[in-house]
Amino acid sequence: MNVLIVYAHPEPKSFNGAMKDLAVETLIQAGHDVVVSDLYAMGFDPVAGPGDIAGERHDPGFFSLPREQTAAYEAGALSADIGAEIEKLKRADFVIFQFPVWWFGMPAILKGWADRVFARGFAYLPGRKYDTGLFKGKLAMVAATTGTSADTYAPDGIDGDILTVLWPVHNGLLRYSGFDVLPPFIAYMPGRLGDDGRRACLEAYRKRLEDTDDTPRLFFHPAADYGKNERLKPGVLARSGVQRNV
Amino acid sequence: MNVLIVYAHPEPKSFNGAMKDLAVETLIQAGHDVVVSDLYAMGFDPVAGPGDIAGERHDPGFFSLPREQTAAYEAGALSADIGAEIEKLKRADFVIFQFPVWWFGMPAILKGWADRVFARGFAYLPGRKYDTGLFKGKLAMVAATTGTSADTYAPDGIDGDILTVLWPVHNGLLRYSGFDVLPPFIAYMPGRLGDDGRRACLEAYRKRLEDTDDTPRLFFHPAADYGKNERLKPGVLARSGVQRNV
Repeated sequence: MNVLIVYAHPEPKSFNGAMKDLAVETLIQAGHDVVVSDLYAMGFDPVAGPGDIAGERHDPGFFSLPREQTAAYEAGALSADIGAEIEKLKRADFVIFQFPVWWFGMPAILKGWADRVFARGFAYLPGRKYDTGLFKGKLAMVAATTGTSADTYAPDGIDGDILTVLWPVHNGLLRYSGFDVLPPFIAYMPGRLGDDGRRACLEAYRKRLEDTDDTPRLFFHPAADYGKNERLKPGVLARSGVQRNV
Repeated sequence: MNVLIVYAHPEPKSFNGAMKDLAVETLIQAGHDVVVSDLYAMGFDPVAGPGDIAGERHDPGFFSLPREQTAAYEAGALSADIGAEIEKLKRADFVIFQFPVWWFGMPAILKGWADRVFARGFAYLPGRKYDTGLFKGKLAMVAATTGTSADTYAPDGIDGDILTVLWPVHNGLLRYSGFDVLPPFIAYMPGRLGDDGRRACLEAYRKRLEDTDDTPRLFFHPAADYGKNERLKPGVLARSGVQRNV
């Protein structure tokens, strides 16, 4: 496989850095090709806006991100930093997002990577989403650290089910654009684990990376379950939350 | 009230811009003081990292965001752009987040505003979260636009319940730091509404802004509902999703 790791942490010696290094080593040993986008090291600019368009603007008088992205992608006129990431994504069979959960989501540098690189035209188009998404056949996984315990992210935990917290990433970013999605690998409070605990956590992560073929994907309702106005058909259990993998 | 509008859209003539302008006008007419942080116009840098610390680093050899934030906030050594936003937040009784939903969340420029400005020490501390959060007594609301329909964000919609999509913002960012949270005001696909539809949508938004006192807040379980390890007590209906306001 061609693997792309999109890594977002400002400290190379962090546990996120250790997870990224372990993934590179493990995946190369298994015979895969691995590319890392180290967003902090690259000084990646996460602010989507007029600067994303290197060529002529679709509408110089009004900046609509989706319309400008579509026109620029078609014309090959997205800025060079976006174009480089698009090429990496095109080649990738498996994409890993490695980040610390900050305020219940991706650090801004990674959220903006998505805003800019998952451009309309490249990552989605009318009629090309979810089961017919443009990245169909690719696999993705979140690998993250948290600042609070696994209990707080349990379905009855105070921070909310980790799969609810990550729903915007799993369903919103990844499944929407066609990926199959592995369950997230979460290192809860690695700073509190002690050296032995951190070693055990990294070992569990290594095993997960070696076992991706045998790990069941997250469940999302197939397109056939949806009817009128993209809502679940009456025959499908339609209570709130059913779409989540819990 | 002192109102802070944190506004994130690159196009002043956008519907987000119109909502922001309407909020400023409506709230001033109602006798409130209004301050706007126009993040794109300010060129706000959303990337949390070593640059956030203007003074001496807590640990020059290892960058931990929460530890550096805590030490720098106590020492008054956060960078000037963060300090200015902190002063606005301190004065604010009511905070509105105005943004387009991009990839099922806040644009990176706004997510990074949260990463950097909701600094540990200022926005949270051990024992100071949720019901005892440091922003207790303040009110917040999301005002947003989407690129897909209200149906797709229904509880049985393909994009997931809008309150699930916004859970990381509502519970994660706002309730965690102590805010009371109004239901979000969502303008679904304003580009498809036509001029009359857009006027009606803005009128509905004006009414919401005039009626904040009478609008029920989103429900979050009080601290008393949580027991061991911050999980809901056995007596409390503990099925997955119960924490969401649906």
